[in-house]
Amino acid sequence: MEALQKLPGVGPRGATRMTQFLLRQPEEGRQLAQALLHTLEQVGFCQTCFLWAEGTCTVCGDASRDRQVLCVVEDPVNAWAIEGTGEFKGLYHVLLGALDPLRGIGPDELTVGKLVERVRAGSFAEVILATNPTVEGEATAHFVAQLLRPFGVRTSRIAFGLPAGGEISYADQVTLARALVARRGME
Amino acid sequence: MEALQKLPGVGPRGATRMTQFLLRQPEEGRQLAQALLHTLEQVGFCQTCFLWAEGTCTVCGDASRDRQVLCVVEDPVNAWAIEGTGEFKGLYHVLLGALDPLRGIGPDELTVGKLVERVRAGSFAEVILATNPTVEGEATAHFVAQLLRPFGVRTSRIAFGLPAGGEISYADQVTLARALVARRGME
Repeated sequence: MEALQKLPGVGPRGATRMTQFLLRQPEEGRQLAQALLHTLEQVGFCQTCFLWAEGTCTVCGDASRDRQVLCVVEDPVNAWAIEGTGEFKGLYHVLLGALDPLRGIGPDELTVGKLVERVRAGSFAEVILATNPTVEGEATAHFVAQLLRPFGVRTSRIAFGLPAGGEISYADQVTLARALVARRGME
Repeated sequence: MEALQKLPGVGPRGATRMTQFLLRQPEEGRQLAQALLHTLEQVGFCQTCFLWAEGTCTVCGDASRDRQVLCVVEDPVNAWAIEGTGEFKGLYHVLLGALDPLRGIGPDELTVGKLVERVRAGSFAEVILATNPTVEGEATAHFVAQLLRPFGVRTSRIAFGLPAGGEISYADQVTLARALVARRGME
């Protein structure tokens, strides 16, 4: 129960319920333990893109992916979200965070150096900066774009604006202001 | 209590509390009644832009507004939201709804005819289509853009994408896909 409570979102009650469940279903408990051990032994960061992987990740190892487009994200979960849209067929680079000087997170705490190496060595035509639409994500996107400028690669930023299906009058002012400024011509 | 319950969001309990309040504070009740009567008598649609107004609306009557840019919205509340951003200094046109064929709402149920008249007569350089990011709002924006094409005015659509301050992995798939497709080059 003490060990389960250390998991995020699990409190004393949840840990008690989980323990009761596992004691009644010992096979589930054994499978969970084995999955944990297997994962901790076998899964690490893909040494190319820093997604979670057993060895080389499934994206880097997929010959059908477009090796001309690189999508830079802060965390593996962001890459999974982008995979979920089915709109992106290129490769990823996970920074493992965003610049945050107040918390002592500079470029050296991220995988920025590896990204520069990849862009220098690779044949990328475009690098899409898909860091989060937060202050830190924006700063990181601009920092990386500037860093990649000498390599003559095109850099782009995912769009900001109104989320799909919403109502203009429910949008926050910053989002609405951005949606107005970034308006696009209609054909 | 019965009359108060007809207001949106007011149920039997709320109506009871409101009635008790008004009976204890009769002056507040009288002021509310007078405000209602005044509003119902004096306030109507601005006959130019269809915002709520007493006579000509404060936007149309403001000589400092940019009369070259027109922002088309579905409802007055959307215009107030855009006013709140401080990003827009032009004029408005309120459609008083969106196209919705299934509910029998076609162009004649909206102020589309008046919009065409304004664009034909006016000197607008750009019409920003700020209908909601919904299926109906999108269809309305495209319909209006096509209708205005003969007048040689530039039409634009507010941007779709990630809302400010969010997390990529929390965005819905449609929004994230649009944010990817509508990415912009970085300088």
